[in-house]
Amino acid sequence: MVDSSFLLACRNRPVERVPVWFMRQAGRALPEYRAVREKHGMFDIIRTPDLAAEVTMQPVRRLGVDAAILFSDIVVPLKAVGVDVELKAGIGPVIAQPFRTAADLDRLRPLEPDDVSYVTETVKILAAELPVPLIGFAGAPFTLASYLIEGGPSRTYGHTKALMYGEPDTWTELLSTLADITSAFLRVQIESGAAAVQLFDSWAGALSPDDYQRSVLPASSEVFDGVADLDVPTIHFGVNTGELLPLMADAGADVVGVDWRVPIDVARERLGSDVAVQGNLDPAVCLSPWNAVEAKVRDILTRNNKRPGHIFNLGHGVLPETDPDVLRRIVDLVHALG
Amino acid sequence: MVDSSFLLACRNRPVERVPVWFMRQAGRALPEYRAVREKHGMFDIIRTPDLAAEVTMQPVRRLGVDAAILFSDIVVPLKAVGVDVELKAGIGPVIAQPFRTAADLDRLRPLEPDDVSYVTETVKILAAELPVPLIGFAGAPFTLASYLIEGGPSRTYGHTKALMYGEPDTWTELLSTLADITSAFLRVQIESGAAAVQLFDSWAGALSPDDYQRSVLPASSEVFDGVADLDVPTIHFGVNTGELLPLMADAGADVVGVDWRVPIDVARERLGSDVAVQGNLDPAVCLSPWNAVEAKVRDILTRNNKRPGHIFNLGHGVLPETDPDVLRRIVDLVHALG
Repeated sequence: MVDSSFLLACRNRPVERVPVWFMRQAGRALPEYRAVREKHGMFDIIRTPDLAAEVTMQPVRRLGVDAAILFSDIVVPLKAVGVDVELKAGIGPVIAQPFRTAADLDRLRPLEPDDVSYVTETVKILAAELPVPLIGFAGAPFTLASYLIEGGPSRTYGHTKALMYGEPDTWTELLSTLADITSAFLRVQIESGAAAVQLFDSWAGALSPDDYQRSVLPASSEVFDGVADLDVPTIHFGVNTGELLPLMADAGADVVGVDWRVPIDVARERLGSDVAVQGNLDPAVCLSPWNAVEAKVRDILTRNNKRPGHIFNLGHGVLPETDPDVLRRIVDLVHALG
Repeated sequence: MVDSSFLLACRNRPVERVPVWFMRQAGRALPEYRAVREKHGMFDIIRTPDLAAEVTMQPVRRLGVDAAILFSDIVVPLKAVGVDVELKAGIGPVIAQPFRTAADLDRLRPLEPDDVSYVTETVKILAAELPVPLIGFAGAPFTLASYLIEGGPSRTYGHTKALMYGEPDTWTELLSTLADITSAFLRVQIESGAAAVQLFDSWAGALSPDDYQRSVLPASSEVFDGVADLDVPTIHFGVNTGELLPLMADAGADVVGVDWRVPIDVARERLGSDVAVQGNLDPAVCLSPWNAVEAKVRDILTRNNKRPGHIFNLGHGVLPETDPDVLRRIVDLVHALG
């Protein structure tokens, strides 16, 4: 699988066909996923290796994508070290007691492989059975911190930023602790067979470049440093990150994900020539008639102009109301054109 | 009032002190506003000139800002032409029957001054009593369309984009109709005494530059063209608009608002030398200790480096949990430094 187009593109190497996968490809857009979810809760699926492996493989079968991504959730490692977190339907993760002070740091401990033995087992099944590389993943320290601090959904990250600005020492220690948990969690996945890993810093785009550089980038770099010896490609993802792209590239990943707000040619200029790029179709486009989807896919490929190091993907996760046939057609079109 | 620092800055002219006001300065952060809201609904306040004028003046008295903004809501002109819209607490505007097809265009008619006679009256009271210029405002065609089409809150604008991509003729007609309503609404405010107007395209940052240029910019330009003969300064605002700034400047406003994701010096480069800038403090910073707030305020002023044409403001609206004393201190600091 070392000659997989996905892994080659991650390394900025030439490929015969541009590889494609979709963030949240294993999820509510697929009827076979919804069928599993009717019988099992999210955490039940994640902690049952056969189910997690099945759900991870569903989009590979149906869509013909060039990579699978482990079915999991961003809060899994937090729950694994004892944080009381629930996934509420239609809301997302809710933390019973939000983190707001230095004393809350005591509520986090290092993650040990035994805390996530179900992940080890799931990854082993998948590494043996999948016809394409498996991407492991974890939330980045800032995004995990914002979940812990806000306690629930937020559009402003007011509590998170108040801690970041108001108690910089506590903030730094919290992010460093989360970086350790995250890199330990990624190591487990890589050592069990994940061929690449993606760090989701979904909410980093809420920050100015200065704040990102000072208060967030060091912890994300620690994560990439923490897995560097394992030598698998790393992907660094966020949304609303137009101004942050050069800094995100500095953090040390091989690939940086971009949403649809920045045209891919502009993004590549900001990222520099050493870094591969993943993206950048607006997931909402997939709800439109096919001729609109096709025009957007062609535009992205034209703008990238056959430069090596392009992994075709959405700029954010698949929307639940997406028709899976549209995703299948996108895969076929990218393969035909790329 | 022609020598007001706010109006001079809008025209890119030198001022003695940098002017300051805050988006949503009349609102839930002020106890005197909450006292009014305990007794009256939003639309009741908006349609009762004495109350609307009182609420508009509250932040001028308490905070010492250099401009007032009419207390209103983005959906007021839609409701005035007969759209069934409610403001639901904690949710925002909810449209009883969302707009999804060409047939829905028949549900919009031109706005006549008599539809909003309460606005005329409120603006007249304020123009007579205020010690600072009054800013009128309206929602931009895209943002109004997204409310009409989604029907309620959305993070993805899936229905809006599906109409934009899938039925471009209907889309163009809808935006053009909304542009007419919006410019008629702004004309009423200017002719009654508003000294400047702001066009809120709050959600435009959900679009790629290409889509913005093709499907949104023409209608926003129509709005600015529609009030150009009245010769008051115009402000064009959105969030997440880093990539759109040059296009937003092209739409024809005197001032472009920027959020905190783009440093103000970078924003001014993208906007060009003819355009003034409004912003760009992160509203979440105001929830932090004063030394953090002060550092951010100083940084913005330092980056602007005394260039004419800077109106200090937040990058988005005041958060309800903000301490008004912090806002007052920001006004004093900007005045002392600027």
